[in-house]
Amino acid sequence: MASHRSPPASLPPLPRLPFSGEGPQDISPAARRRVFVEALAPRVDGGRYPVKRVVGDRVSASCDLVRDGQDAVAGALLVRRPAAREWLRQPLQSVAGERYEASFLVDEIGQWQFAILAWIDPFETWRAGTRKKIDAGQDVELDLAAGALLLKAYASRADAAGADTLRSAAARLEDGSLVAADRWASAASPPILAAVAECPDLRDATQSEPVVIVVDPVRARFSSWYEMFPRSAGAPGRHGTLRDVAARLPYVASLGFDVLYLPPIHPIGRTARKGPNNAPNAGPDDVGSPWAIGGPEGGHKSVHPRLGTIDDLQALVRKARELGIEVALDIALQASPDHPYVTQHPEWFLHRPDGTIQYAENPPKRYEDVYPFDFYGAGWESLWEELHGIFVFWCEKGVRVFRVDNPHTKPLAFWEWCIARVKAAYPDALFLAEAFTRPKLMYALAKLGFTQSYTYFTWRQSKRELTDYVTTLARPPLSDFYRPNFWPNTPDILPTHLEFGNRAAFVQRLVLAATLSSNYGIYGPAFELMDRAAREGAEEYADNEKYQIRSWDLQRQDSLGDLITLVNRVRRENPALQDNLVTFHPTDDDALLAFSKRSADGAHVVLVVVNLDSHHRHAGHVALDLAALGVGPDEAFQAHDLLSDERHRFQGPQAYVELDPEFLPASVFAVRRHLRTEQDFDYYS
Amino acid sequence: MASHRSPPASLPPLPRLPFSGEGPQDISPAARRRVFVEALAPRVDGGRYPVKRVVGDRVSASCDLVRDGQDAVAGALLVRRPAAREWLRQPLQSVAGERYEASFLVDEIGQWQFAILAWIDPFETWRAGTRKKIDAGQDVELDLAAGALLLKAYASRADAAGADTLRSAAARLEDGSLVAADRWASAASPPILAAVAECPDLRDATQSEPVVIVVDPVRARFSSWYEMFPRSAGAPGRHGTLRDVAARLPYVASLGFDVLYLPPIHPIGRTARKGPNNAPNAGPDDVGSPWAIGGPEGGHKSVHPRLGTIDDLQALVRKARELGIEVALDIALQASPDHPYVTQHPEWFLHRPDGTIQYAENPPKRYEDVYPFDFYGAGWESLWEELHGIFVFWCEKGVRVFRVDNPHTKPLAFWEWCIARVKAAYPDALFLAEAFTRPKLMYALAKLGFTQSYTYFTWRQSKRELTDYVTTLARPPLSDFYRPNFWPNTPDILPTHLEFGNRAAFVQRLVLAATLSSNYGIYGPAFELMDRAAREGAEEYADNEKYQIRSWDLQRQDSLGDLITLVNRVRRENPALQDNLVTFHPTDDDALLAFSKRSADGAHVVLVVVNLDSHHRHAGHVALDLAALGVGPDEAFQAHDLLSDERHRFQGPQAYVELDPEFLPASVFAVRRHLRTEQDFDYYS
Repeated sequence: MASHRSPPASLPPLPRLPFSGEGPQDISPAARRRVFVEALAPRVDGGRYPVKRVVGDRVSASCDLVRDGQDAVAGALLVRRPAAREWLRQPLQSVAGERYEASFLVDEIGQWQFAILAWIDPFETWRAGTRKKIDAGQDVELDLAAGALLLKAYASRADAAGADTLRSAAARLEDGSLVAADRWASAASPPILAAVAECPDLRDATQSEPVVIVVDPVRARFSSWYEMFPRSAGAPGRHGTLRDVAARLPYVASLGFDVLYLPPIHPIGRTARKGPNNAPNAGPDDVGSPWAIGGPEGGHKSVHPRLGTIDDLQALVRKARELGIEVALDIALQASPDHPYVTQHPEWFLHRPDGTIQYAENPPKRYEDVYPFDFYGAGWESLWEELHGIFVFWCEKGVRVFRVDNPHTKPLAFWEWCIARVKAAYPDALFLAEAFTRPKLMYALAKLGFTQSYTYFTWRQSKRELTDYVTTLARPPLSDFYRPNFWPNTPDILPTHLEFGNRAAFVQRLVLAATLSSNYGIYGPAFELMDRAAREGAEEYADNEKYQIRSWDLQRQDSLGDLITLVNRVRRENPALQDNLVTFHPTDDDALLAFSKRSADGAHVVLVVVNLDSHHRHAGHVALDLAALGVGPDEAFQAHDLLSDERHRFQGPQAYVELDPEFLPASVFAVRRHLRTEQDFDYYS
Repeated sequence: MASHRSPPASLPPLPRLPFSGEGPQDISPAARRRVFVEALAPRVDGGRYPVKRVVGDRVSASCDLVRDGQDAVAGALLVRRPAAREWLRQPLQSVAGERYEASFLVDEIGQWQFAILAWIDPFETWRAGTRKKIDAGQDVELDLAAGALLLKAYASRADAAGADTLRSAAARLEDGSLVAADRWASAASPPILAAVAECPDLRDATQSEPVVIVVDPVRARFSSWYEMFPRSAGAPGRHGTLRDVAARLPYVASLGFDVLYLPPIHPIGRTARKGPNNAPNAGPDDVGSPWAIGGPEGGHKSVHPRLGTIDDLQALVRKARELGIEVALDIALQASPDHPYVTQHPEWFLHRPDGTIQYAENPPKRYEDVYPFDFYGAGWESLWEELHGIFVFWCEKGVRVFRVDNPHTKPLAFWEWCIARVKAAYPDALFLAEAFTRPKLMYALAKLGFTQSYTYFTWRQSKRELTDYVTTLARPPLSDFYRPNFWPNTPDILPTHLEFGNRAAFVQRLVLAATLSSNYGIYGPAFELMDRAAREGAEEYADNEKYQIRSWDLQRQDSLGDLITLVNRVRRENPALQDNLVTFHPTDDDALLAFSKRSADGAHVVLVVVNLDSHHRHAGHVALDLAALGVGPDEAFQAHDLLSDERHRFQGPQAYVELDPEFLPASVFAVRRHLRTEQDFDYYS
């Protein structure tokens, strides 16, 4: 071993392990637990992080119950509801081999827990063994006597009625005037079994570690986001306001979105303010970047005076909710040099040797209009409390959805603490992590609490890329904690395939985002108006709204608005598109991507085919995975294209499809057959 | 949720979880740990059970170090040797993405531990950032000053020499008379980096849970077992003795075995003794089953008087060891009705309602010559101590290898406690679990401490069955804790393919066992003399030695002895066969099974081809996985058949093979090329 050194004294001692080979070991009372609970599922990282579900989901919990020998084993699923002190109990069912399962409905938002309890069942062991002896014609007098003793032991743990039942059963077992088989049968009858099941001896039962399930609103899994800059919502030439945004709500609702996401609405700093197109020096009328938060007018708990007031925001939130829309605020935990925090709490920032405050940098790049917080500086605990307070402040104002800017540049432990604490008070709060960074860091943020996450979809284009990426996201372990939100564009990203794309390219990316992922969003009106003007050499919009006000003609004839309205309606009306139970189907043309999705109960199936080539018509065959469609091998079914309203009759595993980007580069077929049940499907087959 | 009930009061309370959604949470000091250690490997069940290795292995430990942002991360592997109090430390190396790795040699038998320590490295962060600023021509005066402060902080943690080095470096950074780039370079020079590396600030370092590695003797991974009944070792018509076994040692050594395993050598009960062929009533001269342990002469700590004395056993152990052979005792934790325990410790047995002791049964089958122990009865703790004492007793007599009979009918927790305790005193003790039961139970026994395990190999015959089974066993997670021991036959099992098989069938099963698994064994002389006489309707030997003495003619012309000698020599001389790093190679004939194995250092490779049809010659092509052979795409290499001594020249991915069972149904080729290194191989490719 190279360069070994003892760790310095400052190292905390490692915990001592059992059986560390350093001496004789006493017998632990835990050694009386004969059943081992293994491979408990679902879990994230062996139980270190919560599993995520939405309200209304049925959670299937399963585990191996491993024990020596042949004695009967019994198990229970313990469930604790969000505010409950009590654990509810239901029996585990044997699935196969030593696998056991039980499921429960999470019908309330909040933090649930489940655990497994397992024990040896002496009565079932006795019942089965004695039955075999009777069948083999063996003498069972002693066995019946042993059964009577056993029932009396159960009776001692039972309530009064149960004890009566059990003692009578014991007496029958001991009644030598009856035939052995009858004595056995009466003691093993359903009422006796029920009474026995009520009072197992759990002293030596094994209890698993509890698993936490964070149950979110349905919106956590199924949401359609529309991002817009409030200051661009006004009449041309005027700084938009939150009231203008309120006036825009019917438009957003008509497009079918249910989350309206606004970039930061706070006062914007003056110092080192950026001009249009990220120019280093702003003119006196330049509005600056909303992410340079804080000025004399206030900081993260204030509304930019030109946008309006907190009352305006609350009115917007209320009006939006009437239209089925949640307003999402953008929380960027950083300060402009003019933020009140800078003077009130200099200890929250990193100071350079000359006493100035350290601005953000990613050498050699500098962001002099932004001061990062020093999350581990002298004032770290009060800083964390204050930052947590920002979320609470807006929750108190009615906001429940937060898009968090660059969470990956803030400590992971901060998010674990902050999000859990916010959700303890506001369990329906939803956090979208805007992190485009190393995959493991993106996953860690999701494990630590973020409800939804941005993804790499924005850059995934080919059939192979999309298939691989979506397959990975849709399966455990990721599907248990990472909820993807697919965006074809954002104010930060105008991808090349849109910059140089035609109308079909926009439609294709819209349909892919909206059908491959149950959560998706667009940055508008840039998207529906197909803004393609890019800054030279950058994957970014020219005249970016991040730095200036833009005026958009929403009534333009070529707007994608009608198609977006249709796509969002199809999503709302088809439960299969509201989850990510996806199966890819092979095609004989690499430009044709085919996949199906189904609802958790199997009642709804949608088959999507997208022509990934936005310039040429493609036709070919899809090799249908009929099991994934819930369709029999020779069964005819109707495929109703919900985009074109055309109806096809398909039968067997070969389906011919033809997609012309001039018309529409995608089909979203509702698969219509007889009523389906969950058992008809191979999940992710 | 169906039939919910609160658990009875006897249920221990579940532990409270952090962030249980029940109220505001304080900030934990642990929140200062910025680096998250994830996906630590190797581990078994997330660290619940030890990882197994043998002495001389190099253990590669790896993990993800996930942290926010872009700051540099550093990590160390901490290793604790078996008897040490101190943890040794060595740096982790970046592998790819956020994966880090370090390896260490386990050069001592016993229980090792390793853990990961990880932290943010402010000096490396400073060094890299400042370099980029210098390269971009930016002013770095403040950065150099910040670097000087940082070095002074390191100096405060350093020893005297280190502090001098670091303070001088700080002074150079502050020396305004020098050019910035030179000041940077001198502060980032190798001696300074070395001094910095000696005194990181570990106050906020993250420490993983420690992982236990049980390091066994090499024999745990590579062993060749020979099972024989001592009482059959005498001259015909005479009860064999341990001295007869000692006289048999040269024969066993000449066959090339290194473990000699004896069925129980203890006094045998008289009550309900079984006669030949498991007859219910033994005659006065019948010897009984050695597994019906205990009589007036003693129990588990005694030697059967007709076999000899404890001194004879000790002499046998000594003489065997001189020949490179370990004697393995069979420990069966059960008693005959005549065992001294029955009268001395009735509380160790289960009593029936009439006061008699419960014999073993698996309804409707009864085993009236055997009393099982009551592992959780009134006297359970003293029973466990006594049973543990049996292993210690024989360890004190020099025995180090135990074949444990039916461990799966004794509590898992007993084995975890017992084996760990024995190994705390005798770290080189080796336990083979004779469990043919549910796979998860077999795996649990291995996780809980058994060194080696019997397997389903005995019944696996087809190419598909063998490929699937061996592949599963050879890879993590199983390969980290489950060490297979392949047996073509045992006294309990004469499989049909041997019962109805010819000589080639025996050869085939021998070669498969000896090459597919680094641990294997045969029950002899039944195997080498190809005993095929089965009890009618049972997969079991007629005139089974379990119930009677047999006499064997070891000199028979048709004995497989010479071939066994050759196979064991090939195993000893080829390190590739002493581990289970296996790759299967496709063949165009389902009767041809082809696989290669390599040594951990990649220096040795063996290619095995077996004709699974013992009646017909098969010829065909093997599609060689050249990477697994460590051979270049167009490189010619020699394949030297160590069984037939024929040499072939192979080149490219197609190899023609031809195997005639009349001659030999298998080839074991040594692959000979230029010197190979570990990097030439795709593991398990």
